[in-house]
Amino acid sequence: MSRHVLALLSRPSLEAPGDDAAEAWRFVDPDAPQVSALDLGVTRGDGIFETVSVDHGRPQALEHHLRRFANSARLLELPAPDLDAWRAAILAVIAELGTDGEAFVKTVMTRGIEYGDRPTGWAYGAESPDFTEARTRGVSVVLLDRGYRHDVERTSPWLLAGAKTLSYAVNRAVAREAARRGADDVVFVSSDGIILEGPNSTVVYRRGDALLSPGTGLGILDGTTQANVFRWAESLGMSTAFELTTPDLLRSADAAWLVSSVRLAAPIRAIDGQPLPVDAEFSARMNAWLKSLDD
Amino acid sequence: MSRHVLALLSRPSLEAPGDDAAEAWRFVDPDAPQVSALDLGVTRGDGIFETVSVDHGRPQALEHHLRRFANSARLLELPAPDLDAWRAAILAVIAELGTDGEAFVKTVMTRGIEYGDRPTGWAYGAESPDFTEARTRGVSVVLLDRGYRHDVERTSPWLLAGAKTLSYAVNRAVAREAARRGADDVVFVSSDGIILEGPNSTVVYRRGDALLSPGTGLGILDGTTQANVFRWAESLGMSTAFELTTPDLLRSADAAWLVSSVRLAAPIRAIDGQPLPVDAEFSARMNAWLKSLDD
Repeated sequence: MSRHVLALLSRPSLEAPGDDAAEAWRFVDPDAPQVSALDLGVTRGDGIFETVSVDHGRPQALEHHLRRFANSARLLELPAPDLDAWRAAILAVIAELGTDGEAFVKTVMTRGIEYGDRPTGWAYGAESPDFTEARTRGVSVVLLDRGYRHDVERTSPWLLAGAKTLSYAVNRAVAREAARRGADDVVFVSSDGIILEGPNSTVVYRRGDALLSPGTGLGILDGTTQANVFRWAESLGMSTAFELTTPDLLRSADAAWLVSSVRLAAPIRAIDGQPLPVDAEFSARMNAWLKSLDD
Repeated sequence: MSRHVLALLSRPSLEAPGDDAAEAWRFVDPDAPQVSALDLGVTRGDGIFETVSVDHGRPQALEHHLRRFANSARLLELPAPDLDAWRAAILAVIAELGTDGEAFVKTVMTRGIEYGDRPTGWAYGAESPDFTEARTRGVSVVLLDRGYRHDVERTSPWLLAGAKTLSYAVNRAVAREAARRGADDVVFVSSDGIILEGPNSTVVYRRGDALLSPGTGLGILDGTTQANVFRWAESLGMSTAFELTTPDLLRSADAAWLVSSVRLAAPIRAIDGQPLPVDAEFSARMNAWLKSLDD
């Protein structure tokens, strides 16, 4: 069992040249430098990623993550990832990690070295931090302006809204702004007042016996965990729907969560300092179900 | 003389721990991996950069670049760069590069490895491409929506507008959109219709005997080359000013340029396919003056 594991892909995409190595990936030392200072992933944040959660050695929502990885590549006009190679590398990292607890594998594909002809790709695995408190006590959030209108995905596709890119400096900056305001996390609002998503999560909320989430087409990520939570709610006989969500709709929900691959469902216990009810029992069932998933 | 040179800083900031090495920097092989796959510079585009042009071994606008580097660090709440160490590393890279032609040195400082306690920093130098065509024939540009309102720097500082960050995937995407439309470069427009900047340059234009540029406070970079061009224009007896620039103001200018450290002044010869006059003689004098600068 290793504390953390790094695998470099020899050919992240079949559309671009790569090393014709015997293996699709090779393990390298995660504590040694493995990336060129000329790689566009670091010089321009020009690449994509996914984070797949792992429980008892099982990757969760793996195929959904791979589809979203391919979609981000398309939005950035990167060569299409060779999903078979990525899947094999992810499974190899999980096996090498050999942990029974909660872990994650992060896949990264960059445009490669500037003026080069091939992307760079790796899969990194490690054990997850303990998220018990966020899952049970919940998180307080602040609503922060994302700067973009809610329809920017359609009007200005070059802004890459809806792609999971390495250019996440803003997602880090809003976490600092939340901490400054005494909150744990952030919910982005469009410049025209529509609830979008968290910097690393999807918003889900309950109204009566309906589970709801901001719709697609808002320049936000197609949530892998949100999709699973909707599937679970439907199995309970609840209705599910996407709707254009205003701050007032979110504030008046019976309960709300930020859901994401690794932290799973974190109940929102306050919005801008105003308390929101936490349904501890429903949240616990949701998290138990998410942890039991085998894709 | 080396084709390209990379120097790693042992302590990029005095506010954070660093290697207590004898030297402030050390040369490393630029063709070998030097960055950790866990560095937030690559996993989150969480860092800053500057590109300093070099002519005949002289760095240009070095102090302005260092001030802007420190300002970007402040906006991202990174530890303050040790400007003495950075200046020394830049000069060492230039000396090692040993070229008589045009070159550049790019400085990068990242937040370092996640959960670590120190930033990562390096200075990379190489010879510049030949920009003769852009400087003489000029560039055609398209106006593209930047998505943000022009006042976002004041209303939403967490969007990091005005910082030169490693999260530049959008700046790369707009270059692809420009190419798709048959153009060479881009001028960003705010969502409320104000001219901002190029993805890697500042807009400067002439109306009569005045040289103008979009004002500061618009979430755009404080242009190092624009400042020098204004200084030159003033030495010729021209007036200079910042103004809130609409697309119509830019389209009706007597001449316009995209100015930047390495490419210098590229006349804009067309905006969205509509020709703009190129003043070849004035552009040549502007570029000759920029090339002659000794800071």
